[in-house]
Amino acid sequence: MEKVQPLDRLFTPSSVAVIGASNDAKRGGGFLLKGLIRNNFKGKLYPVNPKESEIMGLKGYPSVLDIPGEVDLAIIAVSARIVPQVVAECGQKGVKFAVVHSVGFSELGTEGKALENEVLQLAQQSGIRIVGPNCMGLYCPQVGLNTIVPSAGLSNGTGSVAFLAQSGWASQNFIEMGFERGLRFSRVVSVGNQGDLTIEDFLEYFGSHDQTKVIACYIEGIKRGREFLQLVKRISQRKPIMVWKAGRTEAGIRAVASHTGALAGDSAIFDAALKQSGVAIAQNLEELIDLAVGFTCPVLPSGNRLGVVVEAGGSAVASADSYQALGLEMPILSEQAQKELVNTLLRDSVAAVPSVQNPVDVVWPLKWPTGWAFIQCSRIVLEEVDAALVMGHAFLNVHLATQVAALRDETGKPIIMIPGNPVQQKRGMSLLVRRGIPTFTIPERALKVLAAMVRYANYRRQC
Amino acid sequence: MEKVQPLDRLFTPSSVAVIGASNDAKRGGGFLLKGLIRNNFKGKLYPVNPKESEIMGLKGYPSVLDIPGEVDLAIIAVSARIVPQVVAECGQKGVKFAVVHSVGFSELGTEGKALENEVLQLAQQSGIRIVGPNCMGLYCPQVGLNTIVPSAGLSNGTGSVAFLAQSGWASQNFIEMGFERGLRFSRVVSVGNQGDLTIEDFLEYFGSHDQTKVIACYIEGIKRGREFLQLVKRISQRKPIMVWKAGRTEAGIRAVASHTGALAGDSAIFDAALKQSGVAIAQNLEELIDLAVGFTCPVLPSGNRLGVVVEAGGSAVASADSYQALGLEMPILSEQAQKELVNTLLRDSVAAVPSVQNPVDVVWPLKWPTGWAFIQCSRIVLEEVDAALVMGHAFLNVHLATQVAALRDETGKPIIMIPGNPVQQKRGMSLLVRRGIPTFTIPERALKVLAAMVRYANYRRQC
Repeated sequence: MEKVQPLDRLFTPSSVAVIGASNDAKRGGGFLLKGLIRNNFKGKLYPVNPKESEIMGLKGYPSVLDIPGEVDLAIIAVSARIVPQVVAECGQKGVKFAVVHSVGFSELGTEGKALENEVLQLAQQSGIRIVGPNCMGLYCPQVGLNTIVPSAGLSNGTGSVAFLAQSGWASQNFIEMGFERGLRFSRVVSVGNQGDLTIEDFLEYFGSHDQTKVIACYIEGIKRGREFLQLVKRISQRKPIMVWKAGRTEAGIRAVASHTGALAGDSAIFDAALKQSGVAIAQNLEELIDLAVGFTCPVLPSGNRLGVVVEAGGSAVASADSYQALGLEMPILSEQAQKELVNTLLRDSVAAVPSVQNPVDVVWPLKWPTGWAFIQCSRIVLEEVDAALVMGHAFLNVHLATQVAALRDETGKPIIMIPGNPVQQKRGMSLLVRRGIPTFTIPERALKVLAAMVRYANYRRQC
Repeated sequence: MEKVQPLDRLFTPSSVAVIGASNDAKRGGGFLLKGLIRNNFKGKLYPVNPKESEIMGLKGYPSVLDIPGEVDLAIIAVSARIVPQVVAECGQKGVKFAVVHSVGFSELGTEGKALENEVLQLAQQSGIRIVGPNCMGLYCPQVGLNTIVPSAGLSNGTGSVAFLAQSGWASQNFIEMGFERGLRFSRVVSVGNQGDLTIEDFLEYFGSHDQTKVIACYIEGIKRGREFLQLVKRISQRKPIMVWKAGRTEAGIRAVASHTGALAGDSAIFDAALKQSGVAIAQNLEELIDLAVGFTCPVLPSGNRLGVVVEAGGSAVASADSYQALGLEMPILSEQAQKELVNTLLRDSVAAVPSVQNPVDVVWPLKWPTGWAFIQCSRIVLEEVDAALVMGHAFLNVHLATQVAALRDETGKPIIMIPGNPVQQKRGMSLLVRRGIPTFTIPERALKVLAAMVRYANYRRQC
């Protein structure tokens, strides 16, 4: 447990040196520095470049040794062969952490491995902890630290989702796609080759980090398998963990080796062990984001009974097709509930009521913008099921979000939504997700996530 | 074949009466009329409502019989019980087609069925062809006819994709989601209960409609199964057809019955028959849109050999995981090709070249914005494979689209793209799709579509 707490300083450094910074905002250290400036990084920023005395309006330092104050974190973006010298200087300076963005290490094979070992030895001698090499670094909106999607300026909105990725591509796209969907992040790390700090270190840290409520992982290969599984098992008793494991096929394993130099191992065995540890498994990036969206819901379903309230019959058909294979039940509602639904809908609907058994079709309610019928019907349905899927609402706004969140808190049951028009309702969808109402584009994706939530709830009950 | 040509007039009427139009743009006929005005419908518009003399700035007519000129199409949005009278009047007027939006017919069971039969008899007596009832109608951007997504004003940009749907929800979302993805449409119809004009009628029409190059279908139940399969088999020898068949499970079949009153039948047998007829099968709405995006590519792969060119190793891993299960091959490139790739990349890259076997990793090319390395490497790779997946490009603009389209036309091989950042590159993705370069958010979805293109190409060769 000794090394867990210090990682807080890695994500919230008071001072950062960007080694290899330049005035070229398009690449390398210049790109990273520009991103930190744009993200309003809250600590001190020291660009380091022997050839530039002023970089993006900041004083440039020839070496990290020339920086006057303390340096918590060095962000290193220089050619691989210079990295040992830079790390040695960081050691002399007393830098605590270094993120090595540079490529050209163990992912290239034997020769690169030797260079990586040299860097790690130098770091160890002076007590610097290393992220990477061959990584995209960190994202911590709390302090405006963002080297993963520096161009986007997404640092507003600290959230509860942590993401740990063995791929810059996955971490970039998880943040960008997730942000658009309404996810807000506590901490994200792209671990790269895991020369020093590993997936296990970050997982343990996220497990103990209070603001982090949901942990998503993209994994190519595990170095300390037994420790990883023990960790996951322990953490998932308190927080949901979701994993997308790549390097699943023979070809995928080869691709992993040349990407991060990791050994992908047997994914089927790994998945089975993860499932037993309460982990939700994704098969691709979008599934991983979907799961994170689902688990930001503050309540879990206490069983597998699903109620569906729809405005459009077609989406009811689509959801009806999915739920059985996913292990969900869609019970026929009691006569009492059906009577209440008919009474509700006759007050509000333009047509005869076609179906109130479950799915409940509200047809095209007269009081359309207010969504009164949706809320009232959902309330009745939730008395007899463990979660509701509500589809077809045309106006996802603050008013609706407040009503739905109140109904969720009142019943203690998840309410999942599909808007009537996902393309026009993107901002509304994001708003709902931020209020803990998982929202998806199509019913099949929503129900897959709900099934994972049901499984996780079962795991938690058995702990 | 007699009834095929006349359907052209249904989609491109010179004059439309909106029966049940009102000044309330939020619902019913007012909503539809407002949409036609907003979409700049190119023919004459006649609002019909006995209580209003002026509707949305247009003269209102008490009955369709009071309209001075000819009426090609009546759009009917009145209560179910009034529909027979309205259709009888349309018969007297000599109206050619009527789209009955009203609900409350055979989807409600016996009583509704009787009302539907009454309407159909009246229509038959006067030779009116009916779309619906219980449908969302038509979308034909060529003339600004749009009752499916009337609020969106999507009538710009006529395209080559036809969509036929047994669900308003599916047709609405296929258009909106597809439009955002870059699909442009020739004709869309929401068939509803298929009282008169059926899926088969529209399929036959789309098959013979020259501007339509791709036909996508959402189907709940087929009324004339044998005819449908014969049609599909014949048409797919010339044009790709993709089908999402809902009502697959016991629960789904029940939901279909209460939605459009159709019999869903055995989906497994149906799927098998469709596959034998060259049809690409989707399992949900997003898969259907993905397939349509893929098939708008003007060339088909002549085999299953895949080449992958990437900028980010993580996405290479993800694609390597998928292709085998999908029946694709990713051959190791010849030594000659590998040599050419190394020469190309050494001219352009910041790092040592990690992999040129396939996938080819261009790392982070110096000439980043121009994408020179992507194009050059893709050209080399395409000499030894049947299609290329190109991932990680950061700037999807007209310049890139022109280069990629030229390379595709030069080689006669599909090039499929995944941008480096799908969230920031949405407009660029749409641009590429409009240029016949299928573009997706994640590799798994791209490869699923490519596999369907390979299967369809095989079918075409065997015909």
